[in-house]
Amino acid sequence: HHSESVNFSNRGMTLEAELNESNQFYLSHEIAVIHKKPTPIQIVSVDYPKRSAARIKEAYFRRASTTDYNGVYQGRYIDFDAKETKNKTSFPLKNFHKHQVEHMRQCLKQDGICFAIIKFISDQSVFLLRASDLISYWDKQTAGGRKSIPRKTIEKIGVLIPYQINPLLPYLHAVDTIIH
Amino acid sequence: HHSESVNFSNRGMTLEAELNESNQFYLSHEIAVIHKKPTPIQIVSVDYPKRSAARIKEAYFRRASTTDYNGVYQGRYIDFDAKETKNKTSFPLKNFHKHQVEHMRQCLKQDGICFAIIKFISDQSVFLLRASDLISYWDKQTAGGRKSIPRKTIEKIGVLIPYQINPLLPYLHAVDTIIH
Ligand SMILES: [Mg+2]
Ligand SMILES: [Mg+2]
Repeated sequence: HHSESVNFSNRGMTLEAELNESNQFYLSHEIAVIHKKPTPIQIVSVDYPKRSAARIKEAYFRRASTTDYNGVYQGRYIDFDAKETKNKTSFPLKNFHKHQVEHMRQCLKQDGICFAIIKFISDQSVFLLRASDLISYWDKQTAGGRKSIPRKTIEKIGVLIPYQINPLLPYLHAVDTIIH
Repeated sequence: HHSESVNFSNRGMTLEAELNESNQFYLSHEIAVIHKKPTPIQIVSVDYPKRSAARIKEAYFRRASTTDYNGVYQGRYIDFDAKETKNKTSFPLKNFHKHQVEHMRQCLKQDGICFAIIKFISDQSVFLLRASDLISYWDKQTAGGRKSIPRKTIEKIGVLIPYQINPLLPYLHAVDTIIH
């Protein structure tokens, strides 16, 4: 069981930093081209000083209408979001926005490879959860079902992503198991 | 010839606005899920007022390390950048940054569908140019070749995207011709 193996995770790193580092490995080894999208910003006011770079003086964060990561792996479109939870026994669905789930639904219709990467911070374990499974829980919630996915369920229907050295989070192995 | 047909282009609209509108059509008709990436920003200082939204007080534009548009169409990864030129007889390669061309090279290695959409503002004509062709001119330039691609060449090796009503720029038709 994974809890007995050596864990290369770094407790100081966010899941996002771990994924960015892994994506950099995949990019430099020509395994996949996957990037995090920039944070969407609403710009209100910009200064254009004569001899230096344009300076944004007033701007606000906008809610993303898509997931955070996408790219290409062996010709296939890859699309996912990454979420951390401090919860030990379940993953709260409120970590997702409606727009992100709708985006996943749209990508699945186009035959994209869509999923969530979920990290339980308490024991640093990380899972890939297929978008179809996430959407199924999401829709049940809307119909009055539970507001979270039990961790036991994620262990059963998800794919464990064990930390290793290079890349730190070899999530494309997990993607291979959901493609084939 | 296209110059004789009715042109639905709107001279007040930027190519980016035309593409965003076309992508919205493709999305709502479940034809493809393609979005423009947010502009990358380096945030320096943020205010967190008690009763209102976080306000970015100082930030700077960063150079994008990828192209502007990507997404999924019939399971395939789509990746492109859009460029307008006022030049009438050629497309200046300086419209692209090195990073964008390297990103296209990386995506092609992963079997992604990569291209540029080029608009000649003078007569509102729009072409799809395969990334492989763009890269070939780019590499020749680096080796001392010409700094632009002649319009006549783009007319010959590119694919014309005629304006229509819905979507305004039916560029996925042009994509079909480069996939098949
Ligand atoms: Mg996120
Ligand atoms: Mg651009």
